[in-house]
Amino acid sequence: MARDTEPDGTGAAGGLARVAAEAGVSVSTVSKVLHGRSDVAARTRARVQRLLEQHGYANAARGRAAPTALAAGGLIDFVIGELDGPWAVQLVRGAEEAVHAVGMGLVVSAVHGPGDGDGPSRHWLEALANRPTRGAVLVVPGLSEPQREELRRLGLPFALIAPAEEPPPGVPWVGATNWPGGLAATRHLVRLGHRRVAVIGGPPGRLASRARVDGYRSALDEAGLPFDPALVRYGDFSHEPAFRHALDLLRLPDRPTAIFAGSDQQALSTYRAADHLGLRVPADLSVVGFDDLDFADWVTPRLTTVRTPLPEMAAVATRMVLQLLSGRAPETTRVEVASELVVRDSTAPPP
Amino acid sequence: MARDTEPDGTGAAGGLARVAAEAGVSVSTVSKVLHGRSDVAARTRARVQRLLEQHGYANAARGRAAPTALAAGGLIDFVIGELDGPWAVQLVRGAEEAVHAVGMGLVVSAVHGPGDGDGPSRHWLEALANRPTRGAVLVVPGLSEPQREELRRLGLPFALIAPAEEPPPGVPWVGATNWPGGLAATRHLVRLGHRRVAVIGGPPGRLASRARVDGYRSALDEAGLPFDPALVRYGDFSHEPAFRHALDLLRLPDRPTAIFAGSDQQALSTYRAADHLGLRVPADLSVVGFDDLDFADWVTPRLTTVRTPLPEMAAVATRMVLQLLSGRAPETTRVEVASELVVRDSTAPPP
Repeated sequence: MARDTEPDGTGAAGGLARVAAEAGVSVSTVSKVLHGRSDVAARTRARVQRLLEQHGYANAARGRAAPTALAAGGLIDFVIGELDGPWAVQLVRGAEEAVHAVGMGLVVSAVHGPGDGDGPSRHWLEALANRPTRGAVLVVPGLSEPQREELRRLGLPFALIAPAEEPPPGVPWVGATNWPGGLAATRHLVRLGHRRVAVIGGPPGRLASRARVDGYRSALDEAGLPFDPALVRYGDFSHEPAFRHALDLLRLPDRPTAIFAGSDQQALSTYRAADHLGLRVPADLSVVGFDDLDFADWVTPRLTTVRTPLPEMAAVATRMVLQLLSGRAPETTRVEVASELVVRDSTAPPP
Repeated sequence: MARDTEPDGTGAAGGLARVAAEAGVSVSTVSKVLHGRSDVAARTRARVQRLLEQHGYANAARGRAAPTALAAGGLIDFVIGELDGPWAVQLVRGAEEAVHAVGMGLVVSAVHGPGDGDGPSRHWLEALANRPTRGAVLVVPGLSEPQREELRRLGLPFALIAPAEEPPPGVPWVGATNWPGGLAATRHLVRLGHRRVAVIGGPPGRLASRARVDGYRSALDEAGLPFDPALVRYGDFSHEPAFRHALDLLRLPDRPTAIFAGSDQQALSTYRAADHLGLRVPADLSVVGFDDLDFADWVTPRLTTVRTPLPEMAAVATRMVLQLLSGRAPETTRVEVASELVVRDSTAPPP
């Protein structure tokens, strides 16, 4: 695998050899500079970096963004609690695009088994020290202080996506506008004429769930509708609990004519419960989801939902890390990417 | 980012320092061995590798699989044509688990813009030379001979997942058992009593689509049912063409009582077409999908489908690469991972 000593002068390895020759240093030294290693004298480093940039390292000549010396070969780690959740792929996609745009690579890791607390595993932190990782984007409920300390010790800037709770000041994170999303979903139902609107939220322990339910509550308030605690349920974003909650709600003597579900998956569970009781969506029951996953547009009736811009969230978090990496502080350490109501066929005036 | 010179002797960097001290070499040399670089003398490399293994590099003491010296810091690249397709996340998950099991990391890249032919981009191949990548798993229609040559030149073993066409001999690849899947889906419908069964396949240019349709044909043959070309349509696995085909089929004077769709997404398009024409699934029309994506179990009626073991396919392909990496030839360069019919609520005897 003699990449750095490739004799033919072609390809990236050959490019390193040329830079090494012009700088009067070994290919190994050029590689160290590329990988951001500290054991190169400052003047040598500056000379090598200049030459790397002059060589448009590596792709400028072909019309793509020229990776900086820092970027070439550099990696951003992306850690996600559940790689099999329905959100994962959109987040990975957004992070991959942001990393690709600067000529870096994205290492994707799931959290296997119980992590340390809510965060990534010890194993992952150890692996970081062995590869040219430059920063990390984490989709985990939270990071403990020792975990944050370890990342700082390794010199790795990081950002969180949709943590369960607000992280301490100074920790960059990106969320969706959950409260406005809940408000928009419920306003839409109220404007259609619904007076009995229920909500099936996600886990109450998550900031996002509480914000969505509070948005729902505010929409009722502004319409002068009473808040009925019997119409508020909490699930866990998955099918079975949502199905049971929806059945319960639809069997109430004064059943709701609309249900705002905390996720698209929970919305499909609500479709199922309605079907189970012989109710039609939207003629007998309006349903609004949250997320706008791919299938929201494929199911029948097509699902009215609040689009959570997952790829954008991941891209923003990744760009925060890249900005920190280049030595600039981000304008803000907290960004909420705007959710948006997408009206389709699952909502209609009440029967 | 002085990871390798961390003075406190803790963590992975400290481990490298200990190995370096015991081997009588610099941390930089240990790092080179870890990264599989060739510019270390063979005897030195052997001594360092032995010490790295003795140090259980890195996690043996904690009950996890001990990565070999090769594995520590090593990466496998995973390249996928469409990171936003519904299959992507399951494939990424399978590959990530296989790579995680040996203590390596997975770099995930999408193919951006037009690749070189059907394969990965030039940009990706160049990036490979700059990071400690040890092998590649590719979910692309195919690899050109120059692309295969470049990977060989870089010393990187690779495997393909579900290529559009059978690759040349010696190129390892993994597919699903598409023909048996089509057979099982159609047999299930025939056994329920259906005599007019239609199929909406994926792109005819893909081996997988043709195999599924051929399996469908064989099931009709063995049941003594005529093959009617008017009942065979080809889409592209996506919604719109499948919706139009399903409408066409259901408007035939002698309409089919069952439709076998080439993907779960196409099955949902068939649900939509049935709903559009006032037909109920499964009372008036049985529908079978292909893939068993998450939502197959969430929609109403729950979708009968052929499970394509996507995570297993990716895991098998990844393990082939790891095996090649360890110098052993895989038992076979072609593996088909078994598909399986999952019977749910979208199929019933004909009306």
